[in-house]
Amino acid sequence: MKLDDLHQPPDLTHLLAELASTAAQRDQQGGHAAHQKAAIARAGLLPLVIPTQYGGAGAGWADAFAVVRAIAAVDSSLGHLLAFQYLQTTTVYLYGSDAQRERFLRPTAELGWWWGNAVNPLDHRLRAQRSGSGWVLDGEKGFCSGTLGSNMMVVSGHDEASGKSIVAVVPTARYGITVRDDWHPIGQRQTDSATVQFRHVQVAEDEVLAGPENVFTPYQTLRSCVAQNVLVNLYTGIAAGALDEARKVTLHASRPWLTSGVERAADDPYQIQRFGEMRVQWLAADALAARAIQRLDRAWRKGVSLTADERAEVSLATAEAKVAAHRAALFISQEMFEATGARSTKAALALDRFWRNARTHTLHDPLDYKLRAIGRYALEGILPDATVYG
Amino acid sequence: MKLDDLHQPPDLTHLLAELASTAAQRDQQGGHAAHQKAAIARAGLLPLVIPTQYGGAGAGWADAFAVVRAIAAVDSSLGHLLAFQYLQTTTVYLYGSDAQRERFLRPTAELGWWWGNAVNPLDHRLRAQRSGSGWVLDGEKGFCSGTLGSNMMVVSGHDEASGKSIVAVVPTARYGITVRDDWHPIGQRQTDSATVQFRHVQVAEDEVLAGPENVFTPYQTLRSCVAQNVLVNLYTGIAAGALDEARKVTLHASRPWLTSGVERAADDPYQIQRFGEMRVQWLAADALAARAIQRLDRAWRKGVSLTADERAEVSLATAEAKVAAHRAALFISQEMFEATGARSTKAALALDRFWRNARTHTLHDPLDYKLRAIGRYALEGILPDATVYG
Amino acid sequence: MKLDDLHQPPDLTHLLAELASTAAQRDQQGGHAAHQKAAIARAGLLPLVIPTQYGGAGAGWADAFAVVRAIAAVDSSLGHLLAFQYLQTTTVYLYGSDAQRERFLRPTAELGWWWGNAVNPLDHRLRAQRSGSGWVLDGEKGFCSGTLGSNMMVVSGHDEASGKSIVAVVPTARYGITVRDDWHPIGQRQTDSATVQFRHVQVAEDEVLAGPENVFTPYQTLRSCVAQNVLVNLYTGIAAGALDEARKVTLHASRPWLTSGVERAADDPYQIQRFGEMRVQWLAADALAARAIQRLDRAWRKGVSLTADERAEVSLATAEAKVAAHRAALFISQEMFEATGARSTKAALALDRFWRNARTHTLHDPLDYKLRAIGRYALEGILPDATVYG
Amino acid sequence: MKLDDLHQPPDLTHLLAELASTAAQRDQQGGHAAHQKAAIARAGLLPLVIPTQYGGAGAGWADAFAVVRAIAAVDSSLGHLLAFQYLQTTTVYLYGSDAQRERFLRPTAELGWWWGNAVNPLDHRLRAQRSGSGWVLDGEKGFCSGTLGSNMMVVSGHDEASGKSIVAVVPTARYGITVRDDWHPIGQRQTDSATVQFRHVQVAEDEVLAGPENVFTPYQTLRSCVAQNVLVNLYTGIAAGALDEARKVTLHASRPWLTSGVERAADDPYQIQRFGEMRVQWLAADALAARAIQRLDRAWRKGVSLTADERAEVSLATAEAKVAAHRAALFISQEMFEATGARSTKAALALDRFWRNARTHTLHDPLDYKLRAIGRYALEGILPDATVYG
Repeated sequence: MKLDDLHQPPDLTHLLAELASTAAQRDQQGGHAAHQKAAIARAGLLPLVIPTQYGGAGAGWADAFAVVRAIAAVDSSLGHLLAFQYLQTTTVYLYGSDAQRERFLRPTAELGWWWGNAVNPLDHRLRAQRSGSGWVLDGEKGFCSGTLGSNMMVVSGHDEASGKSIVAVVPTARYGITVRDDWHPIGQRQTDSATVQFRHVQVAEDEVLAGPENVFTPYQTLRSCVAQNVLVNLYTGIAAGALDEARKVTLHASRPWLTSGVERAADDPYQIQRFGEMRVQWLAADALAARAIQRLDRAWRKGVSLTADERAEVSLATAEAKVAAHRAALFISQEMFEATGARSTKAALALDRFWRNARTHTLHDPLDYKLRAIGRYALEGILPDATVYG
Repeated sequence: MKLDDLHQPPDLTHLLAELASTAAQRDQQGGHAAHQKAAIARAGLLPLVIPTQYGGAGAGWADAFAVVRAIAAVDSSLGHLLAFQYLQTTTVYLYGSDAQRERFLRPTAELGWWWGNAVNPLDHRLRAQRSGSGWVLDGEKGFCSGTLGSNMMVVSGHDEASGKSIVAVVPTARYGITVRDDWHPIGQRQTDSATVQFRHVQVAEDEVLAGPENVFTPYQTLRSCVAQNVLVNLYTGIAAGALDEARKVTLHASRPWLTSGVERAADDPYQIQRFGEMRVQWLAADALAARAIQRLDRAWRKGVSLTADERAEVSLATAEAKVAAHRAALFISQEMFEATGARSTKAALALDRFWRNARTHTLHDPLDYKLRAIGRYALEGILPDATVYG
Repeated sequence: MKLDDLHQPPDLTHLLAELASTAAQRDQQGGHAAHQKAAIARAGLLPLVIPTQYGGAGAGWADAFAVVRAIAAVDSSLGHLLAFQYLQTTTVYLYGSDAQRERFLRPTAELGWWWGNAVNPLDHRLRAQRSGSGWVLDGEKGFCSGTLGSNMMVVSGHDEASGKSIVAVVPTARYGITVRDDWHPIGQRQTDSATVQFRHVQVAEDEVLAGPENVFTPYQTLRSCVAQNVLVNLYTGIAAGALDEARKVTLHASRPWLTSGVERAADDPYQIQRFGEMRVQWLAADALAARAIQRLDRAWRKGVSLTADERAEVSLATAEAKVAAHRAALFISQEMFEATGARSTKAALALDRFWRNARTHTLHDPLDYKLRAIGRYALEGILPDATVYG
Repeated sequence: MKLDDLHQPPDLTHLLAELASTAAQRDQQGGHAAHQKAAIARAGLLPLVIPTQYGGAGAGWADAFAVVRAIAAVDSSLGHLLAFQYLQTTTVYLYGSDAQRERFLRPTAELGWWWGNAVNPLDHRLRAQRSGSGWVLDGEKGFCSGTLGSNMMVVSGHDEASGKSIVAVVPTARYGITVRDDWHPIGQRQTDSATVQFRHVQVAEDEVLAGPENVFTPYQTLRSCVAQNVLVNLYTGIAAGALDEARKVTLHASRPWLTSGVERAADDPYQIQRFGEMRVQWLAADALAARAIQRLDRAWRKGVSLTADERAEVSLATAEAKVAAHRAALFISQEMFEATGARSTKAALALDRFWRNARTHTLHDPLDYKLRAIGRYALEGILPDATVYG
């Protein structure tokens, strides 16, 4: 079995088959995958990383990202939605008080809440103003993955008074919140990463996870390491999925070239070599992803005692994995066509979705600056600073 | 001006602007570009390579492919259609008698006939059977670019009696011919490369360009060198177009990364380097394409005295150019997004069409076997045999 | 510290410094590194993988290869010699009877014997003929690393009667054995991989580890997996060493380019990127090497119960690591000069030794066929057969 | 014949054979190639680019660089020496008065003078001070290729009074000039690029080609374009030479791998592919080199009317060629070993000299800044400024 290194948990078999069976068609339709999100929820995956004390499954990052990779391999939009569920619930856990964790995480586990993301830190259009003991949000936020159809969202707003941001939790149904229908990208078409509009949206004091005066501990800033590991594992998942699809098509549909001298495409020496090459690229990315997760898990277990340098080592390892994963996903999703051939370009097969998904998602934040961070460490031993991007 | 090396003839300015203005939208719609084909015809480009003695413009291959590249840069589907017009009219010229040239080429020049292609040599489903002094065609043929909306087509049928093929000219409107609506690919979406169905289609003796007994001279087999140069120039055109689009977006829409320390994306050292890299890849492909065309033109001028070895040198140079062009088109159309960034993945911009067009078209015939032909020459000095693929 | 991932045991510090201080000079001289081999022996490294029951240190493969990588980073010839010591003593352990293990391994641990290798399986020039209860060896064997100056060697001879090989242990000083002075390569210049001549060399029955009738168990065939892991870890060690040297030179001796606008070479954005790139390549190789070792260690612990498929998984993982390590070593040892600049090409610095060592050693057996084995698995799930090359 | 694209003039056959026959051995010895320089002089190559009106052959750059490439393919040190001869005599032509041209170039043609280079613009250690109507030179200059054994040299000295440089011609034998024996690099070992010491060396007024007050015309600054084209053509020559050597060894000495299933290494599909790959890399570099030379020749013919922008286009095209040539030389000289195999690493064959030569010479000035110049043009249409490096 090709995907052994995904450590795919056995009970996902049915869910993965269901997602895979409609992935090509849903890629073409775009829009909201309500049915599939329900299936994911039914599989019990939503509270996977919520600690057991708040009713969750208390899974470690290795297990959580194994699930993300397995789903991303067949449908990277839904892999993204689930991974962002983990990111939001983790944000509540990292930033919130014990009361907030109890209030927001337990019903997530019990009622199967989906969480949306309205935290895009480069978009300062959403303003937060103090109002009584709470805040009012006005403006809009782009790239809000998973907000459509969610129960709750984590939102960040820009406080002009302090020049800083607040992070809060609000129910998606709150008065004044509108999710616009403006997510029509070339790939990752079902992540619902639309713009969300906020018109005088009230935020109560006890919904604020972090105010403008908040100074995050190194442990809390692991949030952006988690976010970056989400990307890494989506990319390696896409790479694995593309490789697996290429394998199937080559074995079952490709024809040998007329001057190849072989009877089956699978016996063509250049095709064999190509699969060797694709596998090595994927494996290298996967191995670095595993290494990054291992460091994340180790740092996570240190909790509030985590130092800035220990945190930076997670960030560095994640950046290193991201370079390899970014490239593997693009390489394999492009190269696979050299194996599957001209007939595999039928739109109905949508084999290009792997590349479009990879190409869209790998632009989240620039690889150039990951390489720069790695280079600085390699050359001068300087560990990267904690930022919202890693 | 970035595209100087395309040697773009000045009078295409208006046509190119017209094609460019709707290219993204038409990529999404797919289907037949009747309006744009009419504009190309009006620009007088259809009889470009028809010799002047048959009423054409008598252009050499350097000029013809300069037009192909310029159009491919803004719309590679239409570049393909025009290039295939040149391929079909050249087929009539190379294979036909003087009477056939007069009969088929002169009205092409005078009346602006479009030609379709029903010659796909890997598809043996179209059978030709002798019928009186002529033939009857039955079956179907795939990947018939440009047949929809064409006036005439070149068709090849498999003669089971001899195990060989015949090549003939038939009017597209002839009774029994149906162009199916089955061209829905991931790229090159407006090349109308549909399946054509033939039901007892009559072919008169004087419509046959080459019967099964026909032995082609090396000069006549230049047809497949022309066909391969079509591919090369479509690929370099796509590469040039992607590079030019990347440039415009980066200059006018991209934002510098938050830790880059520069004010404009165009001042980011990594972006500058990226454009240098993309340009060098394109230039190398373009230079090898120019070299191949030069050899083709030289061989062409030798006419019937062309030897098999001289012909093989054209084939080799074309294969060499194709390796570089194939890779440059894929590289640039993928890499451009690293410059244009996350916001450039909006479906409405359809910036991914360059990659989808390149990816679809570069699967025409496998690069592996071009490299093998080049390698045999590099290692043992063995020139490639003439085939339908080069 | 750049080399943290090497898991360098602390007590090697002095030895590594000693080897490093003369590595460039010894590279130029070539020949036998008697003094340095004595230092390695004094450091107690020779019996590292010999099980404790035979007086050795009983180290697992993770620890053994960590030592090999650390030494290879400063001197890959001596890394090779030590790794081959581990390979020979492992051969005795895997192939030998308990009596043979006791007889050959215990004095290795107690007296510090060095072992040479005369097993090159592609070289059939050394003939073995039965003679009484033992054998006689006649002919020669090439690429016999470490035989010069060794106490014992493992030797394979070709038995023409059966068409198979025997593997035996002989003291290097035995009458009839001559180590020729013919190892003058472009790299790995101090591995003493000379030709050894055998003139009527007697081999007693109890010196034979495996006769021609011998059928190896999967466990015993782990020997070639160990041999391939030796290569992988030498390559990653070279990559790490080249990267570390590049770092030092760039920090302490390189000058910024005159139009770079920076004061230090280490602040040049392209140099920073280059180090990021080199580090990622090395890390990916290192991670796949660690994965291969992990599988080897796991298989090793299964002992004689190891199945052919379990053994093949080690072989596959090792091939996968080898592709990455081969390329990382070549890439970094070539690319490092772009950082260190024109002044770093002084022969006295011998910075090219990393490339020459990598280039020489990576030709041990062709990467093409490792990729083929990986490709067959990726495409069809076919595990590689056990061979003398993996 | 593999090297057809080198346009090798037929009368070099004997010279090339002579240089080739001792190239490996001389690479190992290093030092001064007096005998081979004499052979080059006897072949009449020294005054090749000197205009006919000064007694030279008046060759254009296409012919001159064809000679450089052909010699570089067999011996890149001597290719370098000859190319630098062309650079120095061109400097005299471009900077000098008519009287100076007559005085220095005619005897070069008539007497076979060799010219050395003492112009390294990054090295400011050589001071020039006014002394009477002339100057005095004190200090030293590094990387002075070809000065050893030369009759004349072009020298640049730093005038501290003006902060600018002077360029002058001096006989190498002039009192006070000492060529040090300090050129012992890893490659390009016979270019005699030693340090030259100047102790109170007198320079007469009429030996000064350009004083500190001199403002060069765009035409005169073509000198650095010539210098950069020298590098480009040395690199493509090395690439061609490495490819040719790889071909010979593979055909005549390599053995097929034991599991390849073929009888000859030349029938191994991966080796054939490798040669295809190497050839395409070389060809692309060669085509861009030809394009650069064409632009240089065109600009050269414009003479003093050349504008700064026209000159910049030569510089740009040369930078573009240099990127491809730099990489092709490194790629082929490294990759060739995958074809030639383990036995080809014998030091006596010195097959690594191609890589060592390429690696040494490609560090002349950083590729990063060539890519930056190309990128600026690709992105913003900004032509590169004239500098001493292009």
